[in-house]
Amino acid sequence: MKAFACIAAAATLVAMAAPASAQFAKPEDAIKYRQSALFVMGQHFGRIGAMANGKVPFDAKAAADNADVVAAMSKLPWAGFVAGSDKGNTKAKPEVWTNQAKFTENHEKLVAETAKLAAAAKTGNLDSLKTAFASTAGTCKACHDAFRNQ
Amino acid sequence: MKAFACIAAAATLVAMAAPASAQFAKPEDAIKYRQSALFVMGQHFGRIGAMANGKVPFDAKAAADNADVVAAMSKLPWAGFVAGSDKGNTKAKPEVWTNQAKFTENHEKLVAETAKLAAAAKTGNLDSLKTAFASTAGTCKACHDAFRNQ
Repeated sequence: MKAFACIAAAATLVAMAAPASAQFAKPEDAIKYRQSALFVMGQHFGRIGAMANGKVPFDAKAAADNADVVAAMSKLPWAGFVAGSDKGNTKAKPEVWTNQAKFTENHEKLVAETAKLAAAAKTGNLDSLKTAFASTAGTCKACHDAFRNQ
Repeated sequence: MKAFACIAAAATLVAMAAPASAQFAKPEDAIKYRQSALFVMGQHFGRIGAMANGKVPFDAKAAADNADVVAAMSKLPWAGFVAGSDKGNTKAKPEVWTNQAKFTENHEKLVAETAKLAAAAKTGNLDSLKTAFASTAGTCKACHDAFRNQ
């Protein structure tokens, strides 16, 4: 019984300590997951940009709703950059995996910026939204420059 | 001045009353958007299923986190089923557009079910999670059967 309990406990520990890649059936799924999350985020972010840039009328409610989605989505893509998903249908540079500390710093910054964007959108003030949009967009670009092939 | 104001007001109204399709640059983006949102939702839902079906050990925190993402994602895909996005890289059946009332009823039911799933996950009770998972999965299947080609 003791041996069985030990094996069971060990198996549980292994399962719990499984790498994030275990969350995806295959590397292609991890790639598709991160690209999907980034695409959804980008669509909602683009709608805020259209208002910030005066291409569509400012709609405070729509801006706040879109910013909430952006803030929620900003937390997701990074789990998809698992080991072994650096090849295939991806523009990710090797630096994602060779400089993980900087990559993590970048996506943590995005999460922080999008939280500020959501807060700014809730004020209903277009100037606040423009400032937060520009700052968030700069964070996107810096990370793309460092970690994504064109 | 009066005429100008009228035109400006009319332009604003038109912009605000623009169909949802105006949120997407082209039909392909709408298709990609809904598929992306559904894929992200499916990945997180699948992780709950793995626990509900005993394929991975039950982890209450992970279940709750995944269920929250599922509940949030369940609100998004439907905006992507815009007019004109029934052709191309899509499995959507014509019924999405010819029977919009039923389609709306289906996705509103999913939003309600995933909210229940998130609540069940927060109880930390595996049996509650299993029940809510099965109910949500049934809602997915019913909608796929009616509105998605295999």
